[in-house]
Amino acid sequence: MPHDCGFLADHLADEQVSLDADDRDGHAGDWGTPEDERVRPEAVCWPESTAEVSAVLAAANERGVPVTPYAAGTGLEGNALPAFEGISMDCTRMDEVIEIRPDDFQIDVEPGVMGSAVNDAVAEHDLFLPPLPQSGDISTVGGMVANDASGAKTVKYGEVDDWVLGLEAVLADGTVIETGGRAVKTSSGYNLTDLIVGSEGTLAVVTRVTVELARRPKQIRGGRATFPDLDAAAEAIAAAMQTGVDVATIELIDPLSTKIANAYSGTDLPNVPTVFLEFHANHHVEDEIETCRAVFEDHGAERFAMAAGDEMEELWEARRNLANAMLAYDPPRRPAKPGDVTVPISHFPEIVRYAKARGDEYSLDVTTFGHAGDGNVHYNVLVDPNDEEELAAGREISDDVVRRAIELGGTATGEHGVGQGKREYMVEEHGENGVETMRAIKRALDPKDTLNPGKIFPETADGERLRVD
Amino acid sequence: MPHDCGFLADHLADEQVSLDADDRDGHAGDWGTPEDERVRPEAVCWPESTAEVSAVLAAANERGVPVTPYAAGTGLEGNALPAFEGISMDCTRMDEVIEIRPDDFQIDVEPGVMGSAVNDAVAEHDLFLPPLPQSGDISTVGGMVANDASGAKTVKYGEVDDWVLGLEAVLADGTVIETGGRAVKTSSGYNLTDLIVGSEGTLAVVTRVTVELARRPKQIRGGRATFPDLDAAAEAIAAAMQTGVDVATIELIDPLSTKIANAYSGTDLPNVPTVFLEFHANHHVEDEIETCRAVFEDHGAERFAMAAGDEMEELWEARRNLANAMLAYDPPRRPAKPGDVTVPISHFPEIVRYAKARGDEYSLDVTTFGHAGDGNVHYNVLVDPNDEEELAAGREISDDVVRRAIELGGTATGEHGVGQGKREYMVEEHGENGVETMRAIKRALDPKDTLNPGKIFPETADGERLRVD
Repeated sequence: MPHDCGFLADHLADEQVSLDADDRDGHAGDWGTPEDERVRPEAVCWPESTAEVSAVLAAANERGVPVTPYAAGTGLEGNALPAFEGISMDCTRMDEVIEIRPDDFQIDVEPGVMGSAVNDAVAEHDLFLPPLPQSGDISTVGGMVANDASGAKTVKYGEVDDWVLGLEAVLADGTVIETGGRAVKTSSGYNLTDLIVGSEGTLAVVTRVTVELARRPKQIRGGRATFPDLDAAAEAIAAAMQTGVDVATIELIDPLSTKIANAYSGTDLPNVPTVFLEFHANHHVEDEIETCRAVFEDHGAERFAMAAGDEMEELWEARRNLANAMLAYDPPRRPAKPGDVTVPISHFPEIVRYAKARGDEYSLDVTTFGHAGDGNVHYNVLVDPNDEEELAAGREISDDVVRRAIELGGTATGEHGVGQGKREYMVEEHGENGVETMRAIKRALDPKDTLNPGKIFPETADGERLRVD
Repeated sequence: MPHDCGFLADHLADEQVSLDADDRDGHAGDWGTPEDERVRPEAVCWPESTAEVSAVLAAANERGVPVTPYAAGTGLEGNALPAFEGISMDCTRMDEVIEIRPDDFQIDVEPGVMGSAVNDAVAEHDLFLPPLPQSGDISTVGGMVANDASGAKTVKYGEVDDWVLGLEAVLADGTVIETGGRAVKTSSGYNLTDLIVGSEGTLAVVTRVTVELARRPKQIRGGRATFPDLDAAAEAIAAAMQTGVDVATIELIDPLSTKIANAYSGTDLPNVPTVFLEFHANHHVEDEIETCRAVFEDHGAERFAMAAGDEMEELWEARRNLANAMLAYDPPRRPAKPGDVTVPISHFPEIVRYAKARGDEYSLDVTTFGHAGDGNVHYNVLVDPNDEEELAAGREISDDVVRRAIELGGTATGEHGVGQGKREYMVEEHGENGVETMRAIKRALDPKDTLNPGKIFPETADGERLRVD
């Protein structure tokens, strides 16, 4: 399916367009894309303004050329992979902080601004962006918006969509729209903001984001607790959440994950089920800590210790590195598929038990870690990627965990988006009518399936784009 | 435009359908509809199940008969008025609490359940529904969802859409969809839940709502502060919010509003600018109270007193009655138009000043009260409804305040929805492209404009429904 991308030169300067193999390789997949599934775009472009995004989209749409928005490429589900080739639209050069309004706790940024750069920009005002994902240092606001990302502090503060007040975005035909605004609440018309957030670049390319920020709490305390077994840890977390304790972070890490983290980051986390904690308050933070400690000790916690000095930062560093650590682990093992289910908190212990038990049946290691307070578990069945049988078993287990999570009222993907990797579960999770309703919206806003085709929706019968007029 | 509604008898029992004048009158408008703008539906029906909603919609859609969902009729913008006649679908008989899942802080309800009934149902589990509007005792969950309602506690807890996890809803052609689920976070596909929330029954009829609840805080303290002038009170509120103080309610009431409230509710609120406050915490609630008190005293607060015993309930009762109180006030005056703008908090003092100043220019009384901490002000230019000139001036002032709010980055409607009354501002607020994008979604999901036609979108050139295939 060769597409003529020569028209890019009509709208962009030389240094904004590349047909080079290296540039195309660099946009052929994301973190989660196995080598043999990478797809090279035919061209890469780097627009630097809304007008350029609009001009390129209008021209591509007219010509039937697919455009897949690209940012930092830290997705895990092939979200930014150009499945039908065409153009990879790299938004990382749109990286301006446009305006900070500290009196309203707001910032306007372009999509290529790094998540952590938002925090840097507003630190002097004692503000911060709460739903920063673990990858916040290396992923962009545009990517966070595309995936409705969330992170370690989501258990207290919510997801990205809770903090996006408004967007400027460009539709497939080049139409520029503004959604939302600067009011913290509104009931004015359809919520286009929340529709575009999480749509993974299939409905629009976001060119400006108005983000609400939070006042940094006066007291922040981190710590960790260890448990004799994983089930006790998971039950303790569910029980703590059910008290309504005000915790800002509550993350579970299993012994295999701590072992992998230690090997990679040089930490000395004990090889027992561990819960990382963070508490935010303006005063008397110790009261919430004690509430949590009491619940944890009731559930058999062996150690519950708040961190001193930089210790916590070291732990978080190890936690942030986990995805890379897993790839570097010796003996070489790969996750069969990245797992990111979220279930109602009462079912959290059950889904963790289920993932481990399924691994045991096949004598395969399963790492489990993640944003436990939200009922979110990242699980990875580790396999030898060259062993077909093991790979198949790993994939089967990964699938079964997703299906079990959906049965429990949960979701196939808590924060990684659907991309290519979770498309097959969409009908199970949302029903045929739910998916068809999403498809109707996609067709209404992008009738030629120009934007990021091949994502979110189940594969079409003929393997083609949704509809080409 | 007579519509044959006889088909209703094919799908519903006798006692579920009425062509009586009284029943039709009872569904001809809402709280905000002036007598001369009421429109009688041709029939009223009361479905009692999702299957009945689906059957009626499928049949009506096929026949081109408009269907306007109706609940408690407490809207202020003609949201539930059957603008093109047809059928008023009254959902108040679907009033079952379906399931409470206390361990997950969740409840599933039918749309006709009263907002306050949710709180009654979960009180034994020490849970509550935070975004209950002021009208929560007399308005339904379905209505709250349709309008993305919010209320006095939204400043701390957010709007209805922040607490709706999932929906069952019926599209115009009778298709039943389920959206969202029971996980507290997800990035799985388009956010249909937040699209339907706030769509005012123009995209779907909601038949089941999964609501997240909050743990009731251990400490709740209410109180009030008074200020020498309105501007000082508004500035104090903005300054308090800018500290990031953890306040659950922060409401402004101007002296005219207190006078009207006293006359109606028999209270003895002082006739000075007053701020109602509520603080929620699990412990040391007095710390946040003192933060707020210090800011208020810096801004000239004359009195800052926490309420004892039932005093606060009496104040809230007076606040809740304000809308009725205004209608009963002597000399008889009516709001020219209900006002509900929301602006970024830094502009809150300005918009209050502006509304009052515009009233002064015409020597017209303007009440200002509302959820000040969100930047939300309800303003009403009080006029003699029989004085055409005064009415015109009142409407002009009301319009100007909306336009000023939009200029300041705010919204025409903070929590009342668009209905009929705010349609004219949609293009100013969202731009032509933004409104056209909403229209594209409406056409995709309801191509025959069956559901609640004549709402949200600017009036069509020929005064007809959006498009009839």
